Amino acid sequence: MSEAYARLKSRFARIATLGEASAMLHWDASAMMPPAGGAARGEQLAVLAGLGHELLTAPEVAEDLAAATAEGKWDAANLALMRRAHRRATALPTALVEARERANAACEKVWRTAKAGADFALVRPYLEEVVALQRETAAALSTALGLSPYDALMDGYQPGIGAADVEPVFTAYEAFLREALPKAEAIQERRGAPLPLPGPFPVETQRVLCRALSARLGLDYDGARLDESLHPFCGGTPTDIRITTFYDPEEVGKALMGVLHETGHALYEAGLPAAWARQPVGEASGMAAHESQSLIIEMQACRSDAFLGFLGGELHRAFGGDPAAYATANLARHWRRVSRGFIRVDADELTYPAHIILRFRLERALIGGELAVRDLPGAWAEGFRALLGIAPPDDAKGCLQDIHWHDGAFGYFPSYTLGAMAAAQLMGAARRAVPGLDAAMGRGEMAPLVGWLHTHVHGQGSRLGFQDLLRAATGKPLDTADFTDHLRRRYLQEA
Amino acid sequence: MSEAYARLKSRFARIATLGEASAMLHWDASAMMPPAGGAARGEQLAVLAGLGHELLTAPEVAEDLAAATAEGKWDAANLALMRRAHRRATALPTALVEARERANAACEKVWRTAKAGADFALVRPYLEEVVALQRETAAALSTALGLSPYDALMDGYQPGIGAADVEPVFTAYEAFLREALPKAEAIQERRGAPLPLPGPFPVETQRVLCRALSARLGLDYDGARLDESLHPFCGGTPTDIRITTFYDPEEVGKALMGVLHETGHALYEAGLPAAWARQPVGEASGMAAHESQSLIIEMQACRSDAFLGFLGGELHRAFGGDPAAYATANLARHWRRVSRGFIRVDADELTYPAHIILRFRLERALIGGELAVRDLPGAWAEGFRALLGIAPPDDAKGCLQDIHWHDGAFGYFPSYTLGAMAAAQLMGAARRAVPGLDAAMGRGEMAPLVGWLHTHVHGQGSRLGFQDLLRAATGKPLDTADFTDHLRRRYLQEA
Repeated sequence: MSEAYARLKSRFARIATLGEASAMLHWDASAMMPPAGGAARGEQLAVLAGLGHELLTAPEVAEDLAAATAEGKWDAANLALMRRAHRRATALPTALVEARERANAACEKVWRTAKAGADFALVRPYLEEVVALQRETAAALSTALGLSPYDALMDGYQPGIGAADVEPVFTAYEAFLREALPKAEAIQERRGAPLPLPGPFPVETQRVLCRALSARLGLDYDGARLDESLHPFCGGTPTDIRITTFYDPEEVGKALMGVLHETGHALYEAGLPAAWARQPVGEASGMAAHESQSLIIEMQACRSDAFLGFLGGELHRAFGGDPAAYATANLARHWRRVSRGFIRVDADELTYPAHIILRFRLERALIGGELAVRDLPGAWAEGFRALLGIAPPDDAKGCLQDIHWHDGAFGYFPSYTLGAMAAAQLMGAARRAVPGLDAAMGRGEMAPLVGWLHTHVHGQGSRLGFQDLLRAATGKPLDTADFTDHLRRRYLQEA
Repeated sequence: MSEAYARLKSRFARIATLGEASAMLHWDASAMMPPAGGAARGEQLAVLAGLGHELLTAPEVAEDLAAATAEGKWDAANLALMRRAHRRATALPTALVEARERANAACEKVWRTAKAGADFALVRPYLEEVVALQRETAAALSTALGLSPYDALMDGYQPGIGAADVEPVFTAYEAFLREALPKAEAIQERRGAPLPLPGPFPVETQRVLCRALSARLGLDYDGARLDESLHPFCGGTPTDIRITTFYDPEEVGKALMGVLHETGHALYEAGLPAAWARQPVGEASGMAAHESQSLIIEMQACRSDAFLGFLGGELHRAFGGDPAAYATANLARHWRRVSRGFIRVDADELTYPAHIILRFRLERALIGGELAVRDLPGAWAEGFRALLGIAPPDDAKGCLQDIHWHDGAFGYFPSYTLGAMAAAQLMGAARRAVPGLDAAMGRGEMAPLVGWLHTHVHGQGSRLGFQDLLRAATGKPLDTADFTDHLRRRYLQEA
């Protein structure tokens, strides 16, 4: 290990530690902070981001990166990721980084009120500022990286993946959906309505159940918390994970599946290679890879017939009522129900990609300058109708529903669908590699699946990019046929 | 305003914002963090402290401080406080600052277990490391400031106050107590035992009552939270205050008086001059001044006959039972009860200074090197017996009871008793200045008192030092006779 590389390792550890502090403050802002704290929190996050940026772009970093050498697969990958992070960071002046953090925090705060009142006009000037700073960011990165402005943003979420990778995938999916959705709806219609689940579902009972199930999946609460927030997420740091959810006493599926989803993210973070903690190579491989881990748990594993069989018993024990309502086939009719809805986070896995395709097209146009923020509500309605045949009755059910853009995240949305596709592919590989995987899930035993994921994904950190990670784990790069095959089996076969 | 001073204001705002981030992470560590998060949190706090220190000691700061000029009382005081902060910071190398933060965090974590098991040996090596780094800190500061090593630490908590200020005060108090304590005990004995308060006191009811009372005192929960922690405290930032307490379902007075105490701190923070936010002059004037604000609320106001009259009605409404138990005189027998106990935070206001005098003597000897950490339990027992005639049965009731030393706070303890004395002096001045103050408190109206404090203390920030603040508010510097007069009236008069 060269001295220059050793210095870089210390510096990147410091930068990552600042990032940990920011992660905790972000969690607090969503789960704990009283309203009047918002302005100061924005300043705090801006200063932390600015200092991290200064550490990354200090003149001696370029010198050390030029001189550094590293041997072995992990160190070599680590050094390459350092160079990549430096290239991205030096493209941006500190003032822009701080201005962006401040604008994001201000917009996110107003968005909460705007969403509650379905009042796009309220948040519009804030979102315009956010978008202007994102365009400025994209332009600066584009020049430095030799990517298109939008690709330069995408690359920040899932390295090496750009619009050219997802556009054909999305176009093909749109065609698949046009055919598959009416078929799935017809099959569902023939099956008839499910027995209602006997409620109510007291929040405290839901909380205990969600916690117990996430612990059963392998989340260690010695280093984790489960709290509540408007927009559920997984935050914190690998040894102090914070997942959140939102409980509805009338409906148990939403919080439950939400917690299982966030647990998938949490297991990835907790399973990252501890020996590489706070180094670039010790981080998750990207947001699409991250989403593959939440979705393999939520969609592939926990909504499988096997796991629903186990889950039904747990639910009946917790909430009582007619046991027939908790039979596997009935739970499947509730929690694998296809429905053309307005809300992305409530969408089933068949229509979910349509929500992403819309956002991908709109955000690319916003960044490219072909779409103005003031025209967003109209473009949203038009795009939604083209994809799913319906248009939202108001902006709370349209372009105000997600936190992402209002918090400055552009180029992130495609990760959700790439993750869904990768999850199907990984699940296929896990089933082939681990005999009795479904039988174990039927007994509520998740260690066989999570162990395989730990070896092939979590423990790999960022050593491999998205495509190489899939190649190593499944023998091929992203193959969207695994996802559509999964959907055909689950939604297009008469029971 | 000179350009150099303007640059300094920006820099100090940035440093203060880093301090805000640390304050939130400290709160989280005490109130929210799962156990496995401790190590990473220690790193996070160390890095933030290190970066703040680097910002304060960068070479250009000395140049700007030399060139800066500032006009007007506030700016002049601000610049003087900047120079003071810089002098203290440049005395310490960054490596020492970070090592100290790490050692403090590690020790504090182990202390939680050691206290629970009354196991001093467990925490001893960690405390030795903390003390070694405090000695190193004190030595470096001593050289730079021309103060004794222990005074150099004290000066960090209440600027301008040293051992020579408190030693005669403490010696005089020891003499006063030797005479007063047996008298107070005899009077109390003759009064007989109070009626027991009818319990139990459900935690949720206590929580609601504590919150309502602190809001009545003026704490705005739009910018504050009330949570639980082992060691109650007031943390956070002026627009996002976090107070904590600890509920005992068998006993209502502890959490209640604790929350009123922390509310006193919180009102100080919330009332600091917003125009000087994140500038040295916009901070509280020091820890003794801070404690004067918690104690004027808890001890002077909320344990007064007037307020107890109001409080009794609130308690009876919340918990029911025999109304006679909630009569003022009976509440006074509970909550103005003198008792030789082992635990500082449970001590009455008459014996409390004895707890402080002991700690002052021990910590001065620890820093001076006359006392070794391994001899602390023995020295504690001996000192306690000399002051109050009893010795603790174990170290959990002795030198393990407080978080302070285990978190690296040496030189802080005297602030508690200086604060108690200042509180008595300020209350006398407030009573003279505001007619009907007690009558208002009897109706649960605290705005007259809090308004006077806002004008004379909170809104003054750090413009004045401890003695000048008292001089401006009460017409004289600290006069301990106001405190002993208060104690004589409250504890040495037959009812």
